[in-house]
Amino acid sequence: MNGPSTAAAFAETATPLHFLSVTEASRLIGSGRLSPVTLVEAFLARIEAIDARLKSYITVTGTRALEAAQKAEAEIPAGRWKGPLHGIPFAVKDNYHVAGLPTTGGSRLMLDYMADATSTAVARLEAAGAILLGKLNTWEYGTGNGGVYHDLPFEVARNPWDLACFTGGSSTGAGASVAAGTAMFALGSDTGGSIRLPAAACGLQGFKATFGRVSRAHCLPNCWTLDHTGPLTWTVEDNAIVMQAISGFDPADPSSADVAVPDYRKSLHAGVKGLVIGFVRDLGAEGEALDDANAQALEDAARVLEAQGAIIREVTLPAPLAHYRSVTKVINWSESYSIHEQDFLERSALMGQALREKMMSGFNVRAADYLAATRLRRSLVDATDALVRSCDALLIAGAFHVAPRFDAPDTVTPFTADTATTVFNVTGHPALSVCTGYDPGGLPLNAQIVGRFFDEETVLRVAQSYEAATPWRSRRPTL
Amino acid sequence: MNGPSTAAAFAETATPLHFLSVTEASRLIGSGRLSPVTLVEAFLARIEAIDARLKSYITVTGTRALEAAQKAEAEIPAGRWKGPLHGIPFAVKDNYHVAGLPTTGGSRLMLDYMADATSTAVARLEAAGAILLGKLNTWEYGTGNGGVYHDLPFEVARNPWDLACFTGGSSTGAGASVAAGTAMFALGSDTGGSIRLPAAACGLQGFKATFGRVSRAHCLPNCWTLDHTGPLTWTVEDNAIVMQAISGFDPADPSSADVAVPDYRKSLHAGVKGLVIGFVRDLGAEGEALDDANAQALEDAARVLEAQGAIIREVTLPAPLAHYRSVTKVINWSESYSIHEQDFLERSALMGQALREKMMSGFNVRAADYLAATRLRRSLVDATDALVRSCDALLIAGAFHVAPRFDAPDTVTPFTADTATTVFNVTGHPALSVCTGYDPGGLPLNAQIVGRFFDEETVLRVAQSYEAATPWRSRRPTL
Repeated sequence: MNGPSTAAAFAETATPLHFLSVTEASRLIGSGRLSPVTLVEAFLARIEAIDARLKSYITVTGTRALEAAQKAEAEIPAGRWKGPLHGIPFAVKDNYHVAGLPTTGGSRLMLDYMADATSTAVARLEAAGAILLGKLNTWEYGTGNGGVYHDLPFEVARNPWDLACFTGGSSTGAGASVAAGTAMFALGSDTGGSIRLPAAACGLQGFKATFGRVSRAHCLPNCWTLDHTGPLTWTVEDNAIVMQAISGFDPADPSSADVAVPDYRKSLHAGVKGLVIGFVRDLGAEGEALDDANAQALEDAARVLEAQGAIIREVTLPAPLAHYRSVTKVINWSESYSIHEQDFLERSALMGQALREKMMSGFNVRAADYLAATRLRRSLVDATDALVRSCDALLIAGAFHVAPRFDAPDTVTPFTADTATTVFNVTGHPALSVCTGYDPGGLPLNAQIVGRFFDEETVLRVAQSYEAATPWRSRRPTL
Repeated sequence: MNGPSTAAAFAETATPLHFLSVTEASRLIGSGRLSPVTLVEAFLARIEAIDARLKSYITVTGTRALEAAQKAEAEIPAGRWKGPLHGIPFAVKDNYHVAGLPTTGGSRLMLDYMADATSTAVARLEAAGAILLGKLNTWEYGTGNGGVYHDLPFEVARNPWDLACFTGGSSTGAGASVAAGTAMFALGSDTGGSIRLPAAACGLQGFKATFGRVSRAHCLPNCWTLDHTGPLTWTVEDNAIVMQAISGFDPADPSSADVAVPDYRKSLHAGVKGLVIGFVRDLGAEGEALDDANAQALEDAARVLEAQGAIIREVTLPAPLAHYRSVTKVINWSESYSIHEQDFLERSALMGQALREKMMSGFNVRAADYLAATRLRRSLVDATDALVRSCDALLIAGAFHVAPRFDAPDTVTPFTADTATTVFNVTGHPALSVCTGYDPGGLPLNAQIVGRFFDEETVLRVAQSYEAATPWRSRRPTL
């Protein structure tokens, strides 16, 4: 296991309000020991204190949040407690629409845009009593191309574990905010890893659930058939709480699946005794890029689960990572181009480099190649699903590297390119990025827990078992 | 109404076995008054007598059929009657695989191909006791481009109402066989009208059901998202009987829908009293191509239904026909190209002109255009579905013209191009082509009855009501 960092300082003492987990804050709010107004004020103060350096937010909606907090403060003592999210402050990547608020998508193309509808995920959270603090930083429309972009309208978010490091993308602000305590949880979106990579880089639990599980209605699309929405949280139990509120059929989303949602917390603490965990230790030639600390943490995670009674079975993916990645590229280029074609043809000068380059890639893709990718995808889905169904869950690397440094651009592309996250955008299986410790420099390590279609329950249960057996949640970045 | 033809002769007297409907033959077989062997022998004799001129078959499987007939002949008196298809001879377009038989798809590329799996539709019919007579003529892989093609490996099928006329495509043999009595019913496939156009040209009832209703497993694809499979029959009741056997979820077909199948014959004779029939009289500028006889027959059909108590409400499609047709072209070119790319690159000389031209169109389609067509399609589906849901069924033209003459090539392209059939390949709604009489030259007229998604029941009910009130089923081609 990875010992505590000697290089990076961190807080282990009495928990300030902005570092409470959702679970902890819920208990205090529900029992009247914590005022939602006090909590929201603490977060707004935290944002004011550090976000000029952190850059996690594009828009802070303080007045709106305080009004909601006052409403919650009146409702709860009156016996109208709505459940574990009542009074909990959160924020969303700025590609979720919220009626009456701007949505920028991190793009110069949308600096004047005001939303007139609210994304289903945000509406469900607000209905559960959660309080929106604002809209979080993001790569332009969720688009990255292996770089850190300084040509976007908002300065790039920084990693709270080391401000000289990048957060991973594209949900840059979501990763930064939850780790740094500028939001208690966040929603991101994930086309090739954009929830899980910031979760990995920032030491969070980031869940890309089954395709169709969480509504995408009234979110800006990046790529229709690969986009997923989902939560980044500090703990696994927090993730289960948020997932409970946002999961389930939504007629407003044509991709939404009408599959029953179980009580995710019912089996959360049931442990892993007797569960078969497929351990993808060998990722083929591309897997050799995995850095030593992440590789060791992945081995350790398998041993932790085994010690708790899981049956660890070594398995391999049915195809090289390169196949999944190629499929993602062709489909993402094509669908993104279709979405942004008019802007590309009429005002591409307003686009950042990464998006413009993606448009140039998408412009020339032939339908035959798009359809070939779709056909290869179909066979990858079937073969991968056979593997997943042969186990209760998989343990597999996510990001292969720790957060890259801004001053070492040669580490940025490998962080983005060397991953096993895209696999599950191609297939649609639920994949949770969990924090598996810290490297000697104090930067977070990660792995993915993957489940069968619509079996988020087992994924959360395995992750909870791992989290409870490891000390990683006792450490927070100092900032 | 259209009077009986003066120019074309036809039989109205004692029915020979090959002109029995499925319903009539079933009663005779089920009650022991007709031997399945006698019936199959009659069809084999009919094929032998006329198919050298008609060209409805590519492969006749006489020995196999006689074996099945002998089996049925033993089962039925032993009390193992399987239902109304037991002992009924049928044939399928030669893009349905049947294990152990060749599938050619009407292509020189497949002259040596032997199938090792059986299409679900054929397997279901055989399980219901129906007897396969063989594989029917077709345009190459279902591909037509507005012409009659004389460069295919099998001579073109001829229209039994006038051998100088074309059957319509692409299920050329299916149209010819059922009208001429070389099969009691047939299965065809329909990407833009290929069941309904031969049904229209040959005076049959041809059903393209809801997308996902009838399995496409182990059929040669033409275009994944537009292809449908379904029956061509002499009567509406025959159609209901065949649909009953072939409808329903099939895990082997990824597009198959898990939607319950009602008993189609339960409400078949319930009439149309009180049903709202949306009458699409105005098809915009493109609808002006409709020839006089078909236009008059369509008006008459509305009046027939009204006289039976239906509420006729004049409605219009939400978009010009040109929009639906453009969507079909781009999607069909792209998906077909993807299917046949390797053959196109390696041995295009074996392809007929129509397929080669489609490949050349598909080669250059950009993914952006394919996706734009897919997006336009989505909006057409929604708008058209709103119209369909506002009524119980629609009455709308199908083919705008009667069967074209081989010696008048200028009539062939209009027959193929001037239709309202593609609308329902784009949207996926169930659409049944019904015979609405005969033109002064004795050639069949047609219209479509269209229903809500998965409401084949109402479509059949409306068609049955119309059929029962009109004399068209008393006339058969003489050949």
